[in-house]
Amino acid sequence: MARQQRTDAARATFSRRRLLGAAGVIGAAGLTGGGFALGSAIATPQKETTAGDETPLYGEHQAGIATPTQDRMVFAAFDVTTGDVGAVKSMLAAWTVAAAAMCAGKQVGDNEKHPLSPPDDTGEAVGLPPSQLTITIGFGPSLFDERFGLAGRKPAKLVQLPHFAADQLDPRKSDGDICIQACANDPQVAFHAVRNLTRLGRGTLATRWMQLGFGKTSATSRAQATPRNLFGFKDGTNNIKGEDTAAMDQFVWVGDEADQAWMKGGSYLVTRRINMHIETWDRDSLKDQEAVFGRFKLSGAPLTGHEEFDAPDLAAKGDDGAEVIPTGAHIRLAAPSRHGGARILRRGYSFSDGADPTLGDFDAGLFFIAYQKDPASQFIAIQKDLAANDALNEYIIHTGSAIFACPGGLQQGETWADKLA
Amino acid sequence: MARQQRTDAARATFSRRRLLGAAGVIGAAGLTGGGFALGSAIATPQKETTAGDETPLYGEHQAGIATPTQDRMVFAAFDVTTGDVGAVKSMLAAWTVAAAAMCAGKQVGDNEKHPLSPPDDTGEAVGLPPSQLTITIGFGPSLFDERFGLAGRKPAKLVQLPHFAADQLDPRKSDGDICIQACANDPQVAFHAVRNLTRLGRGTLATRWMQLGFGKTSATSRAQATPRNLFGFKDGTNNIKGEDTAAMDQFVWVGDEADQAWMKGGSYLVTRRINMHIETWDRDSLKDQEAVFGRFKLSGAPLTGHEEFDAPDLAAKGDDGAEVIPTGAHIRLAAPSRHGGARILRRGYSFSDGADPTLGDFDAGLFFIAYQKDPASQFIAIQKDLAANDALNEYIIHTGSAIFACPGGLQQGETWADKLA
Repeated sequence: MARQQRTDAARATFSRRRLLGAAGVIGAAGLTGGGFALGSAIATPQKETTAGDETPLYGEHQAGIATPTQDRMVFAAFDVTTGDVGAVKSMLAAWTVAAAAMCAGKQVGDNEKHPLSPPDDTGEAVGLPPSQLTITIGFGPSLFDERFGLAGRKPAKLVQLPHFAADQLDPRKSDGDICIQACANDPQVAFHAVRNLTRLGRGTLATRWMQLGFGKTSATSRAQATPRNLFGFKDGTNNIKGEDTAAMDQFVWVGDEADQAWMKGGSYLVTRRINMHIETWDRDSLKDQEAVFGRFKLSGAPLTGHEEFDAPDLAAKGDDGAEVIPTGAHIRLAAPSRHGGARILRRGYSFSDGADPTLGDFDAGLFFIAYQKDPASQFIAIQKDLAANDALNEYIIHTGSAIFACPGGLQQGETWADKLA
Repeated sequence: MARQQRTDAARATFSRRRLLGAAGVIGAAGLTGGGFALGSAIATPQKETTAGDETPLYGEHQAGIATPTQDRMVFAAFDVTTGDVGAVKSMLAAWTVAAAAMCAGKQVGDNEKHPLSPPDDTGEAVGLPPSQLTITIGFGPSLFDERFGLAGRKPAKLVQLPHFAADQLDPRKSDGDICIQACANDPQVAFHAVRNLTRLGRGTLATRWMQLGFGKTSATSRAQATPRNLFGFKDGTNNIKGEDTAAMDQFVWVGDEADQAWMKGGSYLVTRRINMHIETWDRDSLKDQEAVFGRFKLSGAPLTGHEEFDAPDLAAKGDDGAEVIPTGAHIRLAAPSRHGGARILRRGYSFSDGADPTLGDFDAGLFFIAYQKDPASQFIAIQKDLAANDALNEYIIHTGSAIFACPGGLQQGETWADKLA
């Protein structure tokens, strides 16, 4: 059945608009016995696709990395539940076709089938514009274990993250064989994407964990203002911007040095579910909050600067002889100069998963997402230092963690299965 | 400390824009010892408030009921943790001041205080427009128990919901003394509202449960297209629209018949956390899905009609003698004609709280919200019938439930505390 669905998904896609035009046919086919249904399902689209509202799936790199950060996110990580690598590959092929359709604002699969079949598309995005949907997939280290004979395809840089000081990771919120990052300006469009890909994977994989993000916390485009995280601070002021192709090539995109051809043009993705103790933070003084970050809260300027984008002067000392940007300040610890120039591309999201059932505190924080070409010298090196020394550690706790290798972009006609061929 | 915060919150509010203008002052006050900070925090607003982007807090009725349904929602229910009804009332007074500020796109409280104090506002909405934020509060039946001497203020219609067939309610996702429904087109603005009111309540109450909704499932304005729920169907086609003042008066607003003066202009709020078995639903045929709802999936037209807003013909039979809209169809069961003409105003939201940790299924569904003037003859009567007979029951499970009395609107200068005076 799942195989049949995949075949159907691969067979045809219909644009939401075209489908709406074809609705009379479906209505007639859906005739339930009376004479009432004929032509009954002719619908009016709720919204037209907005020009420029579509981010193509195909390209040199996967979309959703250098793409200007969309407003909302749904992230899912999966365990493969079959030993049949062929099933995994046919799922990845079906995912590609479905993803291309959804990113173009179309429905998944064949929705002109007989009404005695389940619809291929689950329907909740009908009438919604593409909303800049991007679907980015990645492969976890465990996909290359003994189960599937893929050990020879594993990139050397796809290493398990080490234990960092104070990690309190929940295994049910960590790791995974395969991941999907779906970002869109409409969360219903992002949810629809993950749901429909999950459905195409039925029998092949099971969801290990899933995370919704309601607000972006990093800009990845010069055209975007720096958003604020749940500590109320601007986040990612010095983030790599997608337009900075030199920095993207230097820090984010795997180039010709790739040990696996499928990683050329790809990137390594690290996610960290970071719970924020916002109740504790909210009792801290403005001055101390600013000392923790090393920035002014309102403007985002470094404590040594006047404007948000002023370069921090890490050496500057005050009249009292102490560093103006304190020793443990987050921006000092995360500064590229401290890590051999290493930078990462962040595109995390704020999350809130309701209230802690015992204390009633917010189960909220930052779902951290970082892309880089070499986790060991970038995220891992930086995080070792942050985990040991960052003043922010008093207010956060890492509860989930994962790493994935995101293959390079797809050419027209290529599928994600081809990356593992 | 909490009391102090409340006083501060009541003292002054600053518009986000005004605050940004005053940023230099804060920057100077935040001087950390060096000469670097002077004037350093002068910021540029990220976005200007959009005209028409603000929904006033004050009016005959609380906003967030007849208001055109905003895109996103954060709902929280609280247990009062003090026995001091005076503390509850001063919190409600502080909430009113804070809510009025936030609905106007301003920050909560005094943010020009000394930097050795915690900021009153948590800051994550600085630079964001009001986004049609509405904050609607309600009082649960338990608020009127023996603890606070409020038994005499309890409206007779604020009854505990009975057990409905197949209810599987989680007490940690049900009930509560006080609730806040925050709706906005930007989820960060809605989250910020609930977070800051929760903070003002520290020491007075604790969060019992909290629910985020990512997509609206009901239109409450004639100007809105009918959105789709996670079953892919248009939801709330025949919902009461806020512009229909006759229906609002007949079904939603408590009028002169109020047994408690504070409920005049108010309404009774029922919430139900309805998990959808979307994996099972997705395996069902299109025809059966349409039979379950009694509507065509794509157009939303009743099975006896041609257009979404055609009136269902519940008596119509097909050539085979069977009802065209089947006996157990959701729209037949929910039809006002079956319940003495009773209607309710729905403004629910789709939710997804990630994956079920054991099976990996989606923990997703519909957070149902309904407003009415008489729960017994409206929601309760309808739900008794639905719980027993609705074909949809095969695909849903009610996991949370609550009822609240939402007082009438506030006049300028009045606070929510006055409603319980």
